[in-house]
Amino acid sequence: MIGLKKITPYVAGEQPKLSKMIKINTNENAFPPSPKVLATLKEFDGDQLRLYSSLENENLTSALSKKLGISSDCITTGNGSDDVLALAFQSFFNSEYPVVFPDITYGFYTVWCELFDIPYMEIPLDDDFHPDFTKIPEKIGGIVLANPNAPTGIVQPLSKIEELLQCHPNVVVIVDEAYIEFGGKSAVALLDKYENLYITRTFSKDASLAGLRVGYGVGNKRLTEVIKAVKNAYNPYSVDQLAEALALAATQDSDYYREMNGKIIETREWLSKEVTRIGFNVLPSATNFILAEHERVPAGEIFDFLRENHVFVRYFPNKERIANFLRISIGTREEMEVVLKLLSEFVKKIEIQEQ
Amino acid sequence: MIGLKKITPYVAGEQPKLSKMIKINTNENAFPPSPKVLATLKEFDGDQLRLYSSLENENLTSALSKKLGISSDCITTGNGSDDVLALAFQSFFNSEYPVVFPDITYGFYTVWCELFDIPYMEIPLDDDFHPDFTKIPEKIGGIVLANPNAPTGIVQPLSKIEELLQCHPNVVVIVDEAYIEFGGKSAVALLDKYENLYITRTFSKDASLAGLRVGYGVGNKRLTEVIKAVKNAYNPYSVDQLAEALALAATQDSDYYREMNGKIIETREWLSKEVTRIGFNVLPSATNFILAEHERVPAGEIFDFLRENHVFVRYFPNKERIANFLRISIGTREEMEVVLKLLSEFVKKIEIQEQ
Repeated sequence: MIGLKKITPYVAGEQPKLSKMIKINTNENAFPPSPKVLATLKEFDGDQLRLYSSLENENLTSALSKKLGISSDCITTGNGSDDVLALAFQSFFNSEYPVVFPDITYGFYTVWCELFDIPYMEIPLDDDFHPDFTKIPEKIGGIVLANPNAPTGIVQPLSKIEELLQCHPNVVVIVDEAYIEFGGKSAVALLDKYENLYITRTFSKDASLAGLRVGYGVGNKRLTEVIKAVKNAYNPYSVDQLAEALALAATQDSDYYREMNGKIIETREWLSKEVTRIGFNVLPSATNFILAEHERVPAGEIFDFLRENHVFVRYFPNKERIANFLRISIGTREEMEVVLKLLSEFVKKIEIQEQ
Repeated sequence: MIGLKKITPYVAGEQPKLSKMIKINTNENAFPPSPKVLATLKEFDGDQLRLYSSLENENLTSALSKKLGISSDCITTGNGSDDVLALAFQSFFNSEYPVVFPDITYGFYTVWCELFDIPYMEIPLDDDFHPDFTKIPEKIGGIVLANPNAPTGIVQPLSKIEELLQCHPNVVVIVDEAYIEFGGKSAVALLDKYENLYITRTFSKDASLAGLRVGYGVGNKRLTEVIKAVKNAYNPYSVDQLAEALALAATQDSDYYREMNGKIIETREWLSKEVTRIGFNVLPSATNFILAEHERVPAGEIFDFLRENHVFVRYFPNKERIANFLRISIGTREEMEVVLKLLSEFVKKIEIQEQ
């Protein structure tokens, strides 16, 4: 058979389905979606599902426009920010020069570059896991920066983003703000000033709607025209009617989410302090997860021990620089107390064995 | 700015939003989704939307596997069949030879070829709008056939599909079965025999879930492995939790859909006969729409007249061979009686003017 794509199958992370477990391996929100979202779901008139959704998701787009203080012409919705990012890569990275991003960042950037035959170059983060923008070559095809970064959790100030935008005015800089509501400053404030800025956001993390698949991108009109044309040439109605209605309801319930995400931030700070006390090195996080390594106990052993106790975290044995780190999503305070207790017990046990 | 995709924006069809209208322009189902779908929607536990859906949509896939009598390993779900088709084009059409499809068919085939830089060749349908497979050159990169075809509505028997599969064993033949439940025989029965067959289906038409966005593709394990790898490299979780749950409910309510779609077929046959009586030439349809031209009254005039009366149909003034045809989706019998009355009045009026 000719014409089959040569591609290495992506090996997905684990989605365990146990009735009693602590699932803190995919950075889902610890709290349910807002009461307004749940009420909208209950009231939704299912009969109308026979009709296509609106092409531009006008209701959602107009609510986002008001919330962010930008024109609707600058917003493109998609099936999660993965969809928006995949569209953005196809829309903005069509040159012979490499697109650059950090060596430790969201794993999908290399996957999309491979899929779309986009040349790319990974720029090593420094020893503290911060990006070193001086290492970016002059001739590049674009930049992608997750801010805050994943899986490090580390955020960059807007001044650093501005530095990037100013130094590389002739290429698009994508800022992936999946985790921005957990501690960063959004680059949306810079949209008026930089025509090469494109920002992606998602309802999966801060709006607790990972199972619904809604994301969006914002950029100036020119970039938006290009990404909309690509979206409409790929799969125009990718945000379904229910997804639009529930995301719209979430947009209108900022108070609830501010409170819940505030609790997550509090729990993150508490947990970071507590695990530091028992020998972990925790990277400073501005997200709903922490990346941490223990000074003596190997990550793999902790990972297995937690797993045996039905606690699922993530680790990256194949990523050399962070192979000894665990990525722990921030669950509820109650869940994290269980996790802390397990970690303390295990670390103590190992230390006694070693004496 | 370098790297921006050069692409002609897609001009979308009209999605009018009037409180009183007859919307028969985008082939939506005339009836609401099944009572099981609506019950599933009401009972859905919104709290779980905080979690990602399962990567393989196991529940839906396993129900489809039982229904179609094929292995789960042969099924790939997606965000509507547009998504599945876009993935299939990327997965199966990677050669230097042109992919072929009829000159009059689903408009997106050329759009995807342009987007993914796939060479293509349109083979003219004959004067009766049937494909002439003898015109397909020897060296090709693949074949796409909508069966039944859109917007003609004409179906090919499985023997013709087999002819294609046998004559071109070294390329993938995609059979797009969006409308198959309205009068065609599914090529799923041929899956065991032909390893170059790939079929796409959707819940948008026969399951009355256009607003939900669920589709799927079926092919042998080898083709499925390739398309799954591409899907997972693009946007793995494209079918959200609600979409999966409601599509699953639809799969379990075949009786309801058989009855409703039977009514649509009945109304289609009745309407075809009635409009033939007032001077229309109607192509034989195996779908939930008809393509028809009047022997004396230009399509554009009928289109405008219907529009003024809040009846929205589709026509294709830029497609030379069918520029004088109207595509009329089959609504409820009541709706189509209104449409028939309007058509009769208008045709009579024009004929009196011409005398």
